[in-house]
Amino acid sequence: MKLTNEQKKEIKDQQSQNFKTKRVTSPELEKVLYEALPVLDHGFIRVIDYMGDDSSIVQSARVSYGKGTKKVSTDSGLIKYLMRHRHSTPFEMCEIKYHVKLPIFIARQWIRHRTANVNEYSARYSILDKEFYIPDKKNLAAQSTSNRQGRGNLINGSQADNILNLLKEDAERNYNNYEKMLNETFDGKIIDESKQGLARELARMNLTLNSYTQWYWKTDLLNLLNFLSLRADSHAQYEIRAYAEIMLNTVKKWVPTTYEAFIDYRVGGMELSSKGKKVIKKMIQGEKCDYESSGLSKREWNELMSSFDFSEKIV
Amino acid sequence: MKLTNEQKKEIKDQQSQNFKTKRVTSPELEKVLYEALPVLDHGFIRVIDYMGDDSSIVQSARVSYGKGTKKVSTDSGLIKYLMRHRHSTPFEMCEIKYHVKLPIFIARQWIRHRTANVNEYSARYSILDKEFYIPDKKNLAAQSTSNRQGRGNLINGSQADNILNLLKEDAERNYNNYEKMLNETFDGKIIDESKQGLARELARMNLTLNSYTQWYWKTDLLNLLNFLSLRADSHAQYEIRAYAEIMLNTVKKWVPTTYEAFIDYRVGGMELSSKGKKVIKKMIQGEKCDYESSGLSKREWNELMSSFDFSEKIV
Amino acid sequence: MKLTNEQKKEIKDQQSQNFKTKRVTSPELEKVLYEALPVLDHGFIRVIDYMGDDSSIVQSARVSYGKGTKKVSTDSGLIKYLMRHRHSTPFEMCEIKYHVKLPIFIARQWIRHRTANVNEYSARYSILDKEFYIPDKKNLAAQSTSNRQGRGNLINGSQADNILNLLKEDAERNYNNYEKMLNETFDGKIIDESKQGLARELARMNLTLNSYTQWYWKTDLLNLLNFLSLRADSHAQYEIRAYAEIMLNTVKKWVPTTYEAFIDYRVGGMELSSKGKKVIKKMIQGEKCDYESSGLSKREWNELMSSFDFSEKIV
Amino acid sequence: MKLTNEQKKEIKDQQSQNFKTKRVTSPELEKVLYEALPVLDHGFIRVIDYMGDDSSIVQSARVSYGKGTKKVSTDSGLIKYLMRHRHSTPFEMCEIKYHVKLPIFIARQWIRHRTANVNEYSARYSILDKEFYIPDKKNLAAQSTSNRQGRGNLINGSQADNILNLLKEDAERNYNNYEKMLNETFDGKIIDESKQGLARELARMNLTLNSYTQWYWKTDLLNLLNFLSLRADSHAQYEIRAYAEIMLNTVKKWVPTTYEAFIDYRVGGMELSSKGKKVIKKMIQGEKCDYESSGLSKREWNELMSSFDFSEKIV
Repeated sequence: MKLTNEQKKEIKDQQSQNFKTKRVTSPELEKVLYEALPVLDHGFIRVIDYMGDDSSIVQSARVSYGKGTKKVSTDSGLIKYLMRHRHSTPFEMCEIKYHVKLPIFIARQWIRHRTANVNEYSARYSILDKEFYIPDKKNLAAQSTSNRQGRGNLINGSQADNILNLLKEDAERNYNNYEKMLNETFDGKIIDESKQGLARELARMNLTLNSYTQWYWKTDLLNLLNFLSLRADSHAQYEIRAYAEIMLNTVKKWVPTTYEAFIDYRVGGMELSSKGKKVIKKMIQGEKCDYESSGLSKREWNELMSSFDFSEKIV
Repeated sequence: MKLTNEQKKEIKDQQSQNFKTKRVTSPELEKVLYEALPVLDHGFIRVIDYMGDDSSIVQSARVSYGKGTKKVSTDSGLIKYLMRHRHSTPFEMCEIKYHVKLPIFIARQWIRHRTANVNEYSARYSILDKEFYIPDKKNLAAQSTSNRQGRGNLINGSQADNILNLLKEDAERNYNNYEKMLNETFDGKIIDESKQGLARELARMNLTLNSYTQWYWKTDLLNLLNFLSLRADSHAQYEIRAYAEIMLNTVKKWVPTTYEAFIDYRVGGMELSSKGKKVIKKMIQGEKCDYESSGLSKREWNELMSSFDFSEKIV
Repeated sequence: MKLTNEQKKEIKDQQSQNFKTKRVTSPELEKVLYEALPVLDHGFIRVIDYMGDDSSIVQSARVSYGKGTKKVSTDSGLIKYLMRHRHSTPFEMCEIKYHVKLPIFIARQWIRHRTANVNEYSARYSILDKEFYIPDKKNLAAQSTSNRQGRGNLINGSQADNILNLLKEDAERNYNNYEKMLNETFDGKIIDESKQGLARELARMNLTLNSYTQWYWKTDLLNLLNFLSLRADSHAQYEIRAYAEIMLNTVKKWVPTTYEAFIDYRVGGMELSSKGKKVIKKMIQGEKCDYESSGLSKREWNELMSSFDFSEKIV
Repeated sequence: MKLTNEQKKEIKDQQSQNFKTKRVTSPELEKVLYEALPVLDHGFIRVIDYMGDDSSIVQSARVSYGKGTKKVSTDSGLIKYLMRHRHSTPFEMCEIKYHVKLPIFIARQWIRHRTANVNEYSARYSILDKEFYIPDKKNLAAQSTSNRQGRGNLINGSQADNILNLLKEDAERNYNNYEKMLNETFDGKIIDESKQGLARELARMNLTLNSYTQWYWKTDLLNLLNFLSLRADSHAQYEIRAYAEIMLNTVKKWVPTTYEAFIDYRVGGMELSSKGKKVIKKMIQGEKCDYESSGLSKREWNELMSSFDFSEKIV
């Protein structure tokens, strides 16, 4: 990740801000505020603003439940209770805003989370940066043979080199032709003064999906956790997981008690179906219990066994 | 509005908080943070938290439009432009949280604005306060004869006294019976130790719609302005307008430039239909233009004329 | 539930409609379309319209996954897979619209589900029906002593009679005074021709929270299932559960395969936290596992044991 | 637009469906149901399903306003009134679902409308079609010099030919390399049996933004009209406008009365600011009124004059 001098100055200016406020603050998050946390080869995540902390969740829950919540002795106990029982509204009382630089094909996954506010860099108005995501060799994997949307073995040797070359060459060539059509380079130089440039809203269509874009993305804590439970998961595409993991770390700094409950109940937790519960109950009670008598489909049986790292897999 | 000693202490504690932050702050809004601003006879509005200020709108707009926005010379010019052209997303980048105490029949209007986060005091858990909204005599109006949902002339004299007495008596009696059914008073005394109390979730159904409830309500600036353009409007019910006007004043303190643009383009502005535009154009050009030739319905014609305070009303 | 003659005629007219369409239809749901299904003492639920069926979920999932979904042999298998893995968007492709008559205090719970479209009867425009919810004796329960928001033992004998009398008397008296203030009865008779009536938007505040209102409520299948998983649950207040159960039955008619998956994975299913999973794993493997060594709080331990109907409760 | 034989068969099958229903139907929309309406060079729009018609809007408005709406004599008058006063909820009672094939850079604009349900073809699971948008020569315009995000003069001659060649060559080369990396062609042939293919979720990043994708997109009528008022507008990018215009035509077939009101009040209408209103009023009253005394900025003055096609432009 390389920042322009202009960006570096902006970040330095923001980080030297020092205001007084009566609002609750999150001291650990303040420490990394505005910082460009690197992701992938050219991307970053910056926390730009936030509202509330763990105490805001407690505060609004106590308004809801009135004197009824007095019985729960601690704030931490209350937050865990809320998380365990999937109470949602108190977690909506905290808000965070990120500035993200990310490849377009990842932005397209990300935007599917609709309950968020977004301002994206517009390639109708302005020329996109000359930066493309090229995967690291250790992430260059073959299509999984077992999972329709996952990755399998690493690709290496000359096949890996060839792929990386194709990606680089195609992205660069297409960007150069983008500039040619615009009749203007990324840093604002007119190429041929005697000609007009193609409208930006048209020229952009020549760019590849690994071009970097950027946006401001703002959401509440509930929806952020929903995002992270999907995108920081091992089934998520590596490239979006790289962002989600950095964000998870900012959540830890921002609302540490909520983070802990999230890890216990969401990230490390699991769901049991009605039939799955019966199987587990039998197993605990030492009754005979196998795939044939479980009422589960083969796929369900295997998923259940692998959740507990049991080896009874059916093929 | 009377606050309990507990509430007064909480507010005093919150107002004496003094934190350092790198986040942008809104100094004028900080001054009234946490304060209970009185509304109606027992209600209040408190600003509990906020995120962003006018500069946050500009910041995110400039990310969207990139170098393209450099041409607009001032932040204020940019905010006006965004408001005029109904750009929406930059105004979503600011967030505010209110603590509101309000009568239930007003809460029911308010909650229809869905793009907000809410935590309401739960009468399943806790006993509601013994407070009811009784209108001031100067707001006691008859049903309008011209507008199906509005107010007409004031009601006064003995009819007004009778109405106010009915409202008071019915609210109080119903509350007393609520306590009787609960077998517990609002301040926690058991009435008859030998009996159980009715479940709170049931007893509450005996309360009148002018009982006060309270909630935390959090929304972004765009949706707040949509709320205010409907609820601070002269067609809104007086009781919700009373809240909206206080909130409009907090917007003025929070984001003064946006406030000004909102007043000019939304509050004081108007819409013209295609046909209405033709009528206005003719009028400007000094052409003959009357109801018969306008193509407007009687109702549309009258609405158009009254928008400009013209007297050509058709009956 | 009593319907007016006007309502009966409207329903009969709607049910005799017979149109041709190329859209997918749900024959079982068609049979009960428009019918007023009774709920509580005066409420009802009517299915007014719907869009899509089980095949619409499959159709949109197959668009997403393209040829990738060909491998899953059956539609039913695909719907189960989507439900199990909490895929959300395919279930949003079906839509349903209900007409509901319900007590106001239940409407206030219901409306907290924001992702729905609502048109409620407006008491600013019109006079509310003279109908109030009075619980059946078998639902008249005391406040639970163990659960802050639940019901405990039944209340009976003279205490029950007294409560029911209070509820009836207060609701009726308040309604009569509502008419008095309006200077108009529910069926449109002016009471005193020499007087004006109080504005409807004001008079309504005298009504009790068990007054019936009605609305059109439209939502997609995903959000309907979220609603039902909370409101058809045993922890939900009985009065809203009564509605949810009727609605669950319309889901069964409408999208039978989805209904079955919902019952297995959501309604009958459960969640395990990270720590809870470890406990269960130990139990299956026959290792010693008790509350002290579990790392769970007392509350969590008890919730876990009771999920499996095990008796190891800690007090 | 070329459809595969498989697609043609699916459409024919759907169009030959003939079900009976008690739901309201829209006969004109039924006629084009499922049909692939061509847009751009390879795109299409298909109406897949719908719920409600003009009468559904009236029905829900009448529930809201109760007997209060009886006074408005006609359904058409009521719909116009609702549109004019920006009533929103009754228009949410109709729903429509489209199947759309569109270039990715347009999909990225489109998805910014968040209040909709979407299922997009997943390039993690499946291989994208080998189709790219190449503009027609008559739409190949230069960047506007006056409008930062618009198009100016046409580009023609050899410069146009060069641009079109670049677009074609780059899209095709990148697609071919996409297949090479996948080690599989678009129609499922393995290229080199001795090698693995790159994971689809990675290979897709090499594609250009004019590649075609497709999705199911479902929304309610209110949000559809908001979409169309922005995207069928002359300021919208031509390529998305091409879709919006086809959709506008389906709205005309579906809900003709609403369509008419929309054209009059939204599409052909305009907004006046508070200051703008004063200017217009003066003009009507024949008072002197020029830019200097108007209180408007230069930009606002020009926008106002051009709304009425007046020539008093300030530079």
